[in-house]
Amino acid sequence: MSVEWKNLDTLDSFKALAKTAPVDLAAVMSGENGAARVKNYSVPMAEGLVYNYAAKAVDDDTLKALAALAKEAQLSEKFEELYNGAVINTGEKRLVLHQLCRGQLGQDVMADGVNKRSFYVEQQRRIAAFANKVHNGEIVNENGEKFTSVVQIGIGGSDLGPRALYLALENWAKTNGKLKMTAKFISNVDPDDAAAVLSSTDVAHSIFILVSKSGTTLETLTNESFVKDALTKLGLNPAKHMIAVTSETSPLAKNEGYLDAFYMDNYIGGRYSSSSAVGGAVLSLAFGPEVFAEFLDGAHAEDVAATETDPLKNPDMLDALIGVYERNVLGYEATAVLPYSQALSRFPAHLQQVDMESNGKSVNRFGEPLDYVTGPIIFGEPGTNGQHSFYQLLHQGTNIVPLQFVGFRKSQIGTDVVIEGSTSQQKLCANVAAQIVAFACGKKDENLNKNFRGGRPSSIIIGDQLTPASLGALLAHFENKIMFQGFLWNVNSFDQEGVQLGKVLAKKVLAHSTDGALKVYSDLLDI
Amino acid sequence: MSVEWKNLDTLDSFKALAKTAPVDLAAVMSGENGAARVKNYSVPMAEGLVYNYAAKAVDDDTLKALAALAKEAQLSEKFEELYNGAVINTGEKRLVLHQLCRGQLGQDVMADGVNKRSFYVEQQRRIAAFANKVHNGEIVNENGEKFTSVVQIGIGGSDLGPRALYLALENWAKTNGKLKMTAKFISNVDPDDAAAVLSSTDVAHSIFILVSKSGTTLETLTNESFVKDALTKLGLNPAKHMIAVTSETSPLAKNEGYLDAFYMDNYIGGRYSSSSAVGGAVLSLAFGPEVFAEFLDGAHAEDVAATETDPLKNPDMLDALIGVYERNVLGYEATAVLPYSQALSRFPAHLQQVDMESNGKSVNRFGEPLDYVTGPIIFGEPGTNGQHSFYQLLHQGTNIVPLQFVGFRKSQIGTDVVIEGSTSQQKLCANVAAQIVAFACGKKDENLNKNFRGGRPSSIIIGDQLTPASLGALLAHFENKIMFQGFLWNVNSFDQEGVQLGKVLAKKVLAHSTDGALKVYSDLLDI
Repeated sequence: MSVEWKNLDTLDSFKALAKTAPVDLAAVMSGENGAARVKNYSVPMAEGLVYNYAAKAVDDDTLKALAALAKEAQLSEKFEELYNGAVINTGEKRLVLHQLCRGQLGQDVMADGVNKRSFYVEQQRRIAAFANKVHNGEIVNENGEKFTSVVQIGIGGSDLGPRALYLALENWAKTNGKLKMTAKFISNVDPDDAAAVLSSTDVAHSIFILVSKSGTTLETLTNESFVKDALTKLGLNPAKHMIAVTSETSPLAKNEGYLDAFYMDNYIGGRYSSSSAVGGAVLSLAFGPEVFAEFLDGAHAEDVAATETDPLKNPDMLDALIGVYERNVLGYEATAVLPYSQALSRFPAHLQQVDMESNGKSVNRFGEPLDYVTGPIIFGEPGTNGQHSFYQLLHQGTNIVPLQFVGFRKSQIGTDVVIEGSTSQQKLCANVAAQIVAFACGKKDENLNKNFRGGRPSSIIIGDQLTPASLGALLAHFENKIMFQGFLWNVNSFDQEGVQLGKVLAKKVLAHSTDGALKVYSDLLDI
Repeated sequence: MSVEWKNLDTLDSFKALAKTAPVDLAAVMSGENGAARVKNYSVPMAEGLVYNYAAKAVDDDTLKALAALAKEAQLSEKFEELYNGAVINTGEKRLVLHQLCRGQLGQDVMADGVNKRSFYVEQQRRIAAFANKVHNGEIVNENGEKFTSVVQIGIGGSDLGPRALYLALENWAKTNGKLKMTAKFISNVDPDDAAAVLSSTDVAHSIFILVSKSGTTLETLTNESFVKDALTKLGLNPAKHMIAVTSETSPLAKNEGYLDAFYMDNYIGGRYSSSSAVGGAVLSLAFGPEVFAEFLDGAHAEDVAATETDPLKNPDMLDALIGVYERNVLGYEATAVLPYSQALSRFPAHLQQVDMESNGKSVNRFGEPLDYVTGPIIFGEPGTNGQHSFYQLLHQGTNIVPLQFVGFRKSQIGTDVVIEGSTSQQKLCANVAAQIVAFACGKKDENLNKNFRGGRPSSIIIGDQLTPASLGALLAHFENKIMFQGFLWNVNSFDQEGVQLGKVLAKKVLAHSTDGALKVYSDLLDI
């Protein structure tokens, strides 16, 4: 084992980083120096995206210290171990292979007696074949009619990622003649969720995808039952309308209750499963397998960018390093994700899961308590909507919240209007540019109520257009950033023991085997 | 003037509060003591709702100190001044009258030469008459056909609140035969927002509501143009399809380009405007005016509850006080809003605006800098979805995030399935009960990765069912809580100067009159 797993606060380079002089962001972003920063503090990503960090509170000294930290923390070496098949998920003793779903980065990875890349490719091939048969009418409903809708039943990683990606590409697909089937999602155990989705769905012409790795997720099995009831009430056979995405050892695999089953495995965490069959089935059915393949290609290209060993040329690693600097040196507690793209309306909710579930930990990968803070709170809404909402606090609140903007030069649909001499797309882009500078530089006013102190850091990822490929690169960027941050914090980013206690207690409530406070709450809620 | 506006840190009662002994939440919530707390630490709200704060880190000593703080800060007196028409919005020198939209709490309020309650009632009456004419076919489209959809064009407070409320009641309305028209919303200046909504809307049978107090909101006017283009392309006359909600002095008032106009005024902030014509027009068209009236009645009933002068019997004031204790004594930086109700999926986004835009301030109401923190970050998603997402960090992250749960005994639609001996609704309620106790009490485990320290505070609002009336009470509770917190922090919760700088800079970008960093960003984004 060439790498050493050490706590962040034991690294000399971190101690040196903590001693670097703070940067006066408002000052360095002003005038010609500011213009030069915006030109220089920029790293190309895959698929034409660019990570621009000019409005972060760093300078060449900070960057040098961050580069030293990346080296001492062996970030590149750890990533290499990960993609070559090391047991990075120490808690559950598992490999971490979501990047392998979208391409071979290193050596062959063997597990469970098979070459895992071949396994993932085989699932993609099977999904593609199935989707093509649905689209060309070889697989039809019981009346011989084509399926027109697809409904994903899943929760957490089986819901947030696929849903965010579907919404991100729905209008692109419509505009480019790629929308094969509309997709919907049922997730919450709240019975009104399933009931509402089903009442607005053409059930007879729908394929339902049941997504559960273990085949035992209670919410998902409950919602499956809702769907089966709805099908049965229409005189339809659920087995002719449902497919499963699950592990090969689950009760849903090779089960005659489903048209077909596609497989994932224990090496893909739920929150990282959009690149696997979990995202693949619904996105291939909705947009066609070639669109999903483009998405994977974009993600893989960003993974390749993340293998760059110079942190200043590696957008994912640099983003991670700056984030740790903001969290552990500057002491900021949250990060807002602000895409200036309505198509990315649910992308912040997905990143909220990926980030907070991965790095919201208080112990290191060896189960030892940590003396420093780890993952931040992640939240966000699309701009310009957020500007008319919570930006007040971001601009003038008592705490500083680092910001992650995303913007594209072109819209997806292309329809636009000119009002007051500019298109909506130009207004959208003008707003994100203006916000970056407003947050960084502020503006003095003698009336302190109208004064902007500035010094509020942000970065922006800029792309030409949100397409399957650039969306893949965007998602991989954040997944890789979070992975590198986990390496820096020395946590296991790939388990989630923090969600277990609630599950155990909920079962006790349902079994009426509680006492004390829990019993009284149960009574108050009439359970 | 009987009240004195003082900074929080100048109050003796606040200094005393800061010295109260911290409460060991895990300990006090255990065993029979815990059961007693859940029974006792509970305050009735309006419409059968209950605010239960047993799982907050307070005890009788803390509560006594909070009550003293409420008294010294003159919270009840300040609220009384507000509803009797004082100029509480000092920055913009305006009255604050959103509560008056839903009922008379105090004396008559005269402004602009009219009785404001009469003015709001008159607008409600006019909206009701208009909505009834649309529903009964007196007002029809140019082909003499009934309107079936309503589309709200607005941003910020003209969007988030009405949208959250519509979604909250859509399934209730369907189930109870109250859904008169489906509603959609166009908000973002991203051209893909308007284009996508319009492409999925039956434009010829839609009424569009243009909502802008000033009549000059750029995003909204731009999106109006999109709508007019869509109508014109179908050979339809926009003036026969559009109504305006605006101020009486705006260019949209008494304008022949609209079927009708309904009025709000400067005393209703955008984020508090759901109770005014801003929410009234779309909700009355969607569900009928009597449903909107029930919503207002529920909100008014909660406003009445907020006039209770004993803080321990006033759910809105008590919630505010505990929040300030968590923020300014315990040092927590965020609050998560977690409704166990899919219908409330966008309610956290609305509260995010109401709270963060109101109290995300660094100066007091006199424009003097503050030496203490004010409004927290607000974020949230519905449970149980959040459990499978960011709850990991809430349970085991390095920072503590106070939680605000909401739960209802009954679902809205009533369709349900029994799996493993319980309904989905029971599972939903069991989960929220379990989470409260898991967060508060934790669970020891020798494997620290599976250890839950507990001590993570939450409160829950419990209701029988989410209905128009209970939704009104729920919204008013949070509006009033935020108002009381603004009083405690001595900030002006009713202006939003922090959003101005971005607007100014965006206009400069669009006029191509920028230099330095902003010019380079503009170039990168091809503006």
